[in-house]
Amino acid sequence: MAGSTIGNKFTITTWGESHGKALGVVVDGCPAGLPLCEEDIQIFLDRRKPGFSQFSTPRKESDTVEILSGIFEGKTTGTPISMMVRNTSQRSGDYGDIATYYRPGHADYTFDQKYGFRDYRGGGRSSGRETIGRVAAGAIASKILKELGINITTYVSSIGDVHIDKNNFDADYILKNDLNIPDPAAYTRASSLLEDCMAGNDSIGSSVECIVHGMPAGIGEPVFDKLDACLAKAIMSIGAVKAVEIGEGTEVSESRGSYNNDEFTMKDGKVSKSTNHAGGILGGMSDGSDIVLKAHFKPTPSIASTQNTVNKSGEDIEVSIRGRHDPIIGPRAVVVVESMTALTILDLLFENMSSRIDKIVEFYND
Amino acid sequence: MAGSTIGNKFTITTWGESHGKALGVVVDGCPAGLPLCEEDIQIFLDRRKPGFSQFSTPRKESDTVEILSGIFEGKTTGTPISMMVRNTSQRSGDYGDIATYYRPGHADYTFDQKYGFRDYRGGGRSSGRETIGRVAAGAIASKILKELGINITTYVSSIGDVHIDKNNFDADYILKNDLNIPDPAAYTRASSLLEDCMAGNDSIGSSVECIVHGMPAGIGEPVFDKLDACLAKAIMSIGAVKAVEIGEGTEVSESRGSYNNDEFTMKDGKVSKSTNHAGGILGGMSDGSDIVLKAHFKPTPSIASTQNTVNKSGEDIEVSIRGRHDPIIGPRAVVVVESMTALTILDLLFENMSSRIDKIVEFYND
Amino acid sequence: MAGSTIGNKFTITTWGESHGKALGVVVDGCPAGLPLCEEDIQIFLDRRKPGFSQFSTPRKESDTVEILSGIFEGKTTGTPISMMVRNTSQRSGDYGDIATYYRPGHADYTFDQKYGFRDYRGGGRSSGRETIGRVAAGAIASKILKELGINITTYVSSIGDVHIDKNNFDADYILKNDLNIPDPAAYTRASSLLEDCMAGNDSIGSSVECIVHGMPAGIGEPVFDKLDACLAKAIMSIGAVKAVEIGEGTEVSESRGSYNNDEFTMKDGKVSKSTNHAGGILGGMSDGSDIVLKAHFKPTPSIASTQNTVNKSGEDIEVSIRGRHDPIIGPRAVVVVESMTALTILDLLFENMSSRIDKIVEFYND
Amino acid sequence: MAGSTIGNKFTITTWGESHGKALGVVVDGCPAGLPLCEEDIQIFLDRRKPGFSQFSTPRKESDTVEILSGIFEGKTTGTPISMMVRNTSQRSGDYGDIATYYRPGHADYTFDQKYGFRDYRGGGRSSGRETIGRVAAGAIASKILKELGINITTYVSSIGDVHIDKNNFDADYILKNDLNIPDPAAYTRASSLLEDCMAGNDSIGSSVECIVHGMPAGIGEPVFDKLDACLAKAIMSIGAVKAVEIGEGTEVSESRGSYNNDEFTMKDGKVSKSTNHAGGILGGMSDGSDIVLKAHFKPTPSIASTQNTVNKSGEDIEVSIRGRHDPIIGPRAVVVVESMTALTILDLLFENMSSRIDKIVEFYND
Repeated sequence: MAGSTIGNKFTITTWGESHGKALGVVVDGCPAGLPLCEEDIQIFLDRRKPGFSQFSTPRKESDTVEILSGIFEGKTTGTPISMMVRNTSQRSGDYGDIATYYRPGHADYTFDQKYGFRDYRGGGRSSGRETIGRVAAGAIASKILKELGINITTYVSSIGDVHIDKNNFDADYILKNDLNIPDPAAYTRASSLLEDCMAGNDSIGSSVECIVHGMPAGIGEPVFDKLDACLAKAIMSIGAVKAVEIGEGTEVSESRGSYNNDEFTMKDGKVSKSTNHAGGILGGMSDGSDIVLKAHFKPTPSIASTQNTVNKSGEDIEVSIRGRHDPIIGPRAVVVVESMTALTILDLLFENMSSRIDKIVEFYND
Repeated sequence: MAGSTIGNKFTITTWGESHGKALGVVVDGCPAGLPLCEEDIQIFLDRRKPGFSQFSTPRKESDTVEILSGIFEGKTTGTPISMMVRNTSQRSGDYGDIATYYRPGHADYTFDQKYGFRDYRGGGRSSGRETIGRVAAGAIASKILKELGINITTYVSSIGDVHIDKNNFDADYILKNDLNIPDPAAYTRASSLLEDCMAGNDSIGSSVECIVHGMPAGIGEPVFDKLDACLAKAIMSIGAVKAVEIGEGTEVSESRGSYNNDEFTMKDGKVSKSTNHAGGILGGMSDGSDIVLKAHFKPTPSIASTQNTVNKSGEDIEVSIRGRHDPIIGPRAVVVVESMTALTILDLLFENMSSRIDKIVEFYND
Repeated sequence: MAGSTIGNKFTITTWGESHGKALGVVVDGCPAGLPLCEEDIQIFLDRRKPGFSQFSTPRKESDTVEILSGIFEGKTTGTPISMMVRNTSQRSGDYGDIATYYRPGHADYTFDQKYGFRDYRGGGRSSGRETIGRVAAGAIASKILKELGINITTYVSSIGDVHIDKNNFDADYILKNDLNIPDPAAYTRASSLLEDCMAGNDSIGSSVECIVHGMPAGIGEPVFDKLDACLAKAIMSIGAVKAVEIGEGTEVSESRGSYNNDEFTMKDGKVSKSTNHAGGILGGMSDGSDIVLKAHFKPTPSIASTQNTVNKSGEDIEVSIRGRHDPIIGPRAVVVVESMTALTILDLLFENMSSRIDKIVEFYND
Repeated sequence: MAGSTIGNKFTITTWGESHGKALGVVVDGCPAGLPLCEEDIQIFLDRRKPGFSQFSTPRKESDTVEILSGIFEGKTTGTPISMMVRNTSQRSGDYGDIATYYRPGHADYTFDQKYGFRDYRGGGRSSGRETIGRVAAGAIASKILKELGINITTYVSSIGDVHIDKNNFDADYILKNDLNIPDPAAYTRASSLLEDCMAGNDSIGSSVECIVHGMPAGIGEPVFDKLDACLAKAIMSIGAVKAVEIGEGTEVSESRGSYNNDEFTMKDGKVSKSTNHAGGILGGMSDGSDIVLKAHFKPTPSIASTQNTVNKSGEDIEVSIRGRHDPIIGPRAVVVVESMTALTILDLLFENMSSRIDKIVEFYND
């Protein structure tokens, strides 16, 4: 596949460019009977909407979703759900000169190498706006997961060298601040850091953490389609992510087995774990603990300070990127990470339904 | 898919359990006309063979491969290549009691939850022996990549807190030491650390780094099937990997754009980059620089020291894992990381062939 | 997959219901650099447009296509092409009572059994209007095939017991008559037959034949993804098709080998065949002759004459289907058969590009 | 994919050539807990075994299956089941001269065109022996279907112009005669016809019919992955099949709607149909009636009588095919048609499990 589709059972296909007519997604494999309306989707889209924070691009887009198919009398019908957001604030003029050179840290050069030319307006298909389709689909996946008792919490866990303090963790605060950070003290420090970056025409990296509560055990396939492998692909497919960690992540390579192993123990009559270094996944399958993952985002590559690069005539030149850009990617990407996580988990939950002959016989004999 | 297949164009399907009759792989999509013999495969398999290092399990397996199909008169025919390795040193007796409880850090509990029961002998399908099929297939992918001028170097980059010093990097040393480490001084320190671990009935984590030289630019699909996303899945699907980094990886979340962006510059008349923080991938497509990735392996979960766990009757118990186990996973996993990287890159190279109409017309008009 | 996507390399995902807001398709995997505009698509869509023939439903739809993404400065960019047609003439009132019973020959009962309920307006997703997406995508596939010298001729080959006479075959006449039949004399007889059917509140079956000229040899995969197997799926996936024949089709089961084998012979210095009973496919791969296939369409199930059926309360009732319906499916399906054929062949042409190592090396060394 | 895999949830990957070391299949997605042994597979394989009928090739192969993985203590574990049959009676000498020319009706020419050369021994991968893997997998699928109350009857329905008489239908007779024909009188006539063919160094075509009893309603996806579309692909992928019919098949193109529509009626308190012209499928989904399909097989292309063809030097030559060949394909293909049908239905049964939100919630809340 050309790669605009992800998922085997609950599949999504995104389309659209930053400065094209519209962006959207087709969700195929959504089960029938789920109550669904545009408001369900809009709530998710509003979490990534630009123009409403001092720390995001001033490009204002209402990003209003239209559901075009797959719903009848307020419920999903089991057929594809097509959703679309029209672009309204394209200022393509901003991008005219970009056609002639390759922005450092961007996909300009690689697009040209692959396709022979590119839609240079606002990054075209590699723009962060491509995630509109992901988030619209993620809203549906999340709604289904909720019906199964699975809930996801996602937040910015660090900005530059400002890390949240887990002792200050306040889940309610996440959606109340424009950095989607769960620690008010860290918010203050991060704000200062961001102001400093912006003053210096610079940008900064960040990390996003995602916790899945209520996972049943045994979800994920034991070899290539491991739950963590599928999550890694889904998360790494978000632009600007350069590392994915599950549980304690990179720290495991410095740990000893006697520390890193999570011991099993009985709790309230159920098999449980004393610790969760594994981030809820053993052998590629969920173990019933919370799934914990972290994505590391590089700093926004579009910066106004002067940089060296080359143009299409093969000359070394200096550039400074104009236009409307976020100085940081993490905060607006929180809902994207949450969406990709929800989509991946749901797909594997569906995949898992045919793993035991007794359950299949029971399903069809009902 | 049930998840024992990976790849869209160059697909591999692995099968087999640690203590079953045999393990193997079917490679579908290998182009016709490649000279290939069992020796090509055996060289790769020997790099992961157990029993030949003081730091690996004493279980001795010759792991001799048999090619069963897809070769005619010394060349691939374009049809599936089936390869098999018979198990010879199964000492299933070692594992009898494991059937009754869940080993910490292992997939015992998750297998039981998913399937209702499990093949408990040596981890069954979740054993490291499953990677035999991956490595046999990786040998073929690597051979094709070499024909295209693409070469891969893979090595252990850290063991516990012993990190290699890039100033001491000696590529030739990698395959000459049983830790597959490229720095003789680091080898000495790591050996001491491992002896200490083993003396304490403990195990230790490690990291493996992989560098791909000679990549053409423009390989990878720009949305979900990004080169880095596909690599992340492939690498995270290796048992015990808990984090995957591309280029500078987790460090990007602490960097500024002015540092992290790799500037383009002309070099010998070609577009080049002054630095490679991106690890050779921009917007999900290769940029012509070396691809750089790192996998973090947890410590081997099988340790002889006493641990708490629960049994299948729901009782808290103490266990100490007997049997033959590696105290560290990284060194034997080097060739697995290399194989998964080769497979992923090859698949995307094939995928890429239909990305431009002018190239397609040229291909068919030849 | 939930089954609204077809193709591995050139994939299409259709969406939309008969009486929803719109219908459409996302085409992923279209190579970059193809000149493409809405007019290219509209020409194809107009061939299936309702309301313009005495023998088709009087429902008038302009079926005007909008291209929403994937085109820049008049050429495809290599990213997904999203296309949409708004519904304008929904008279859902016609369908109100259909909600309560199961129309014979329709998918009402099976939809209810699968999903628990259904969008009963105009057949919902199982309406012939679903093919709008297929045809829009088919227009693109056909345009690419033309660039490769491959052309497709499709026409109605029979209506009831009126069969075309190959001696009267007039390719230019196909698009000049509202039955898309290539034989003027057969047109006259078929018209009378259709008038008779309509007078009797009845409908009639038909067959559609498709010829692909200019196929290179060796396209198709030799086992499950045979060219004929993929065509069979693609064609049988069109609603109302109940049989697919390749070459001489059902007649082969009555033939002897000495007759059925096509002998090879040299012609103008090239390997050629004296006959083409095989319909251009041997062992699942094209042999360089014309591909010949035929689809058999059942009569339109919606008929105004009285039929017995059951309602959702489980009572036997009598019904007569009102609304606007075609008395025959074949003529408007001609462009659908052509589209599905084009899509299938293009996908396998792309698939085929990595079948030989020498060609791959040449491709990347260019 | 390169096309040696079929199925999305219950996937099979076949490998092996006629005169290679072995042939086999990997079944991935088989649910855990199914009792399974080699005898279950062998019974199916014996139905296609050569050398035991006056009307099949005298090549004797025991075709003894070995299960290499995926079974533990007599039950499937949910992991891949690898099965292999060693070739024992390769007489490659028979095929030496075939390397130099293209046999009429065979895949020799198309293989050479696709791959640049071919394994010419016994047809290599395009040999009927490739179906060993399909049948071994089909045995498992059939066993699971039986657990769900679904049974399949398959038989030869015609040989040349000898058609079975449904009034003489004797299901018990099918496996008792070497033509797998359900009508003793037709057997006698077909035998004479075959003797006549063999005396004339000729071969004859045949058709195979397959009936699926006990199908639940609502199985199949409504657009591209229609039950009939998937069956058409699966059946057409069997070598030598040139037409696939569902229900009344080609006859529908001559029928009127008033005849062809199956009327619904209540029977024993259940929705039922008075007739089954549709062959149990409406809108791509099963309607609860028997599934009925028919495959048309061409005559065996290998015939001893003299034929014209060309050689690799581009010269017109005369050939007569020696070696051990069946004069008819249908009888030995009966179990192949049954296997492909079982595999397809099972895959769609698994696919269907996530089609309703209420059923999913129930499944996971159990």
